[in-house]
Amino acid sequence: MPFTYTGIRVRDLKRSLTFYTKVMGLKKILRGRMNAGGIFLQLKDPRSRQRLELNYYPPGAKYHERFRSGSELDHLAFWERDVDRKYQQMLANGATKAVEPFSGGYRLAFAKDPDGIWIELLGKERRARRRAGSTNV
Amino acid sequence: MPFTYTGIRVRDLKRSLTFYTKVMGLKKILRGRMNAGGIFLQLKDPRSRQRLELNYYPPGAKYHERFRSGSELDHLAFWERDVDRKYQQMLANGATKAVEPFSGGYRLAFAKDPDGIWIELLGKERRARRRAGSTNV
Repeated sequence: MPFTYTGIRVRDLKRSLTFYTKVMGLKKILRGRMNAGGIFLQLKDPRSRQRLELNYYPPGAKYHERFRSGSELDHLAFWERDVDRKYQQMLANGATKAVEPFSGGYRLAFAKDPDGIWIELLGKERRARRRAGSTNV
Repeated sequence: MPFTYTGIRVRDLKRSLTFYTKVMGLKKILRGRMNAGGIFLQLKDPRSRQRLELNYYPPGAKYHERFRSGSELDHLAFWERDVDRKYQQMLANGATKAVEPFSGGYRLAFAKDPDGIWIELLGKERRARRRAGSTNV
């Protein structure tokens, strides 16, 4: 019984597809229709092989519901070489602020995707990253 | 920026760890504490390599909240050889009913984990599976 993917519910399929492919680097590998009504797009990260499914239920579909914020999905995590730069790029492309970049062993930041889902950016500390690039520091 | 894992919020860390390891077959690979308060357990499926993080925020922690049901996390999907048997095993081990096993191209069922998170079981049709095991049918 391998764990195959995580499915998130989205309110605008095109908006979420653009965000997760153009901004977050995933690739679309599958598109299908649910018998109960709805569309799924399966995405995969070509580097980590992790999968994410975008689930869209139009009004009238059996599992359509008024979108409401809840606790179940804590966050999606992306490893990032330059957390600060990625954070700004996300904000310029449909994400909103959650927690500004900060340091705490790693460099971290949290932004919300177009549906309000928290995305964690995780990378090495800025100093460590700079040192790695120069022997003069 | 590889997509690294999905983190779900759980209300009882031991209960969820037992469920996702003993029942759903994941392995614990990492345990840590968040600076803002909270514990994370990272799990991995040794077969698919997909990762799931269990996030627990005790009362008083910065990101603790009263658990409420929401729309963001649609489901976690597990590929299963015998969907009907796995569904019953899940119900006997802390899961609750969502959608009884049914057929629609694949064999499918949905059960809720101890926090109410929907888990999809997905496998081949029962007839196709039986045929595969016998040339006399």
